[in-house]
Amino acid sequence: MRPPQRNIKLVIEYDGANYSGWQRQKNTPRTIQETIEKILRKIIGEKIILIASGRTDAGVHATGQVANFKTISKIPAGNIKKALNGLLPKDISIRDVEEVFLNFHSRFSAKSKAYRYSILNQEHPSALLRDYCYFMPHKLDIVKMRKAAKGFLGRHDFSAFCASGSSVKGTVRTIKKISVTKKSFYPLSPISYPLIFIDITADGFLYNMARSIAGTLISVSRGKIKPRQIKEIIKGKLRKSAGPTLPAHGLCLLKVGY
Amino acid sequence: MRPPQRNIKLVIEYDGANYSGWQRQKNTPRTIQETIEKILRKIIGEKIILIASGRTDAGVHATGQVANFKTISKIPAGNIKKALNGLLPKDISIRDVEEVFLNFHSRFSAKSKAYRYSILNQEHPSALLRDYCYFMPHKLDIVKMRKAAKGFLGRHDFSAFCASGSSVKGTVRTIKKISVTKKSFYPLSPISYPLIFIDITADGFLYNMARSIAGTLISVSRGKIKPRQIKEIIKGKLRKSAGPTLPAHGLCLLKVGY
Repeated sequence: MRPPQRNIKLVIEYDGANYSGWQRQKNTPRTIQETIEKILRKIIGEKIILIASGRTDAGVHATGQVANFKTISKIPAGNIKKALNGLLPKDISIRDVEEVFLNFHSRFSAKSKAYRYSILNQEHPSALLRDYCYFMPHKLDIVKMRKAAKGFLGRHDFSAFCASGSSVKGTVRTIKKISVTKKSFYPLSPISYPLIFIDITADGFLYNMARSIAGTLISVSRGKIKPRQIKEIIKGKLRKSAGPTLPAHGLCLLKVGY
Repeated sequence: MRPPQRNIKLVIEYDGANYSGWQRQKNTPRTIQETIEKILRKIIGEKIILIASGRTDAGVHATGQVANFKTISKIPAGNIKKALNGLLPKDISIRDVEEVFLNFHSRFSAKSKAYRYSILNQEHPSALLRDYCYFMPHKLDIVKMRKAAKGFLGRHDFSAFCASGSSVKGTVRTIKKISVTKKSFYPLSPISYPLIFIDITADGFLYNMARSIAGTLISVSRGKIKPRQIKEIIKGKLRKSAGPTLPAHGLCLLKVGY
């Protein structure tokens, strides 16, 4: 008789700076998936294949990436968590490990994902925030950005916000929530850093979708696109009519909803 | 006639991780002072010597280090700031540049310095905070730490909190303020990170003083030292009777007061 399988779910935080993204790939030097799988194999003694909620691009961070794997090992979840955090490189940490139902699938069971794009909006750059915020010295117009953001809400074909040749599941997605907020401090220092967060929750994201929506909101702020044009741009399905794709280091996968 | 001298003051932020501290030294590979001086020389076309409020150790960060230099150049302060931020490596940024009176001296004019020691106090480490907070998985007793912190206040010989063979100005310093506070979030993510900050303002700090005070407060929390013993430890002047020196990456020079 084969020993019973268990399904283990991980909640993962990572700094994407030193990785070629989440997904293991041939000839790609270092990915987050591969790094965790190798250490899991050491801990558990089986070849482990991690299924994530989705890939993240090179340089993108996560505080709530979710991945699961099947195993016949009996090592308790808490011990797997401790062993992983002890052995992983410091730019990957495991926030939670739990045993879940066998039919839980990190990607197929996911109902929503939340991404945050962080912008440092002051005249001079910040040494301490350089890897986590996109530096934008021109003062942003948050009122205009908010007005434009509403145009993204709902179910649309987001081809205009998708890097070419990527999607397998079509280009229709539903944006459930989108907000533009200003925070002006950073707890590690009493200095006030003027930060702007673009938070987007959707049932799924196309390749580069969050970063090109963020770039489009910046184009709106700078007067290159009018807030009411967002709906036309979505309808037009032309990538070049939307704003630029902002750099990866400002983006963070916050949460996957199930 | 010699052209009139100007005195330029910089407020500097840096990530200390990749540097051997502030101070330029023979045979030391890379220091923050040297890095800024080289770029200033390029911008201004003179050999520049920076005078800082004091050195910071290898790995220690700053959001408010202050340094000044004399020059005969007429380049406006705002242009120096822009040029520096454009040319410096991204882990050093210039928050402010202004022309000050000729007799301003970053070290001798300084009246106080404020340091923050940041601790991540949760069971698992954090990939995103790894370089800026000391990770302490054992739950800290903030009430005990606060009680003990009061013992440091005032003018004392802090020999027990000083690495040997370092100070030139004696070992007496005045701690004006010390606080232990809990913050439980981090704005780049809606995730709650339980952080503990030890903030110390003094007229000056001995070598390793902030980090050994922080280490002593941790020893208090863990029951190895009683809060009321702080005054005895100060009086005893023995480094070994105090707690350990915590790692550099949790420490940040917040502000220099003039």
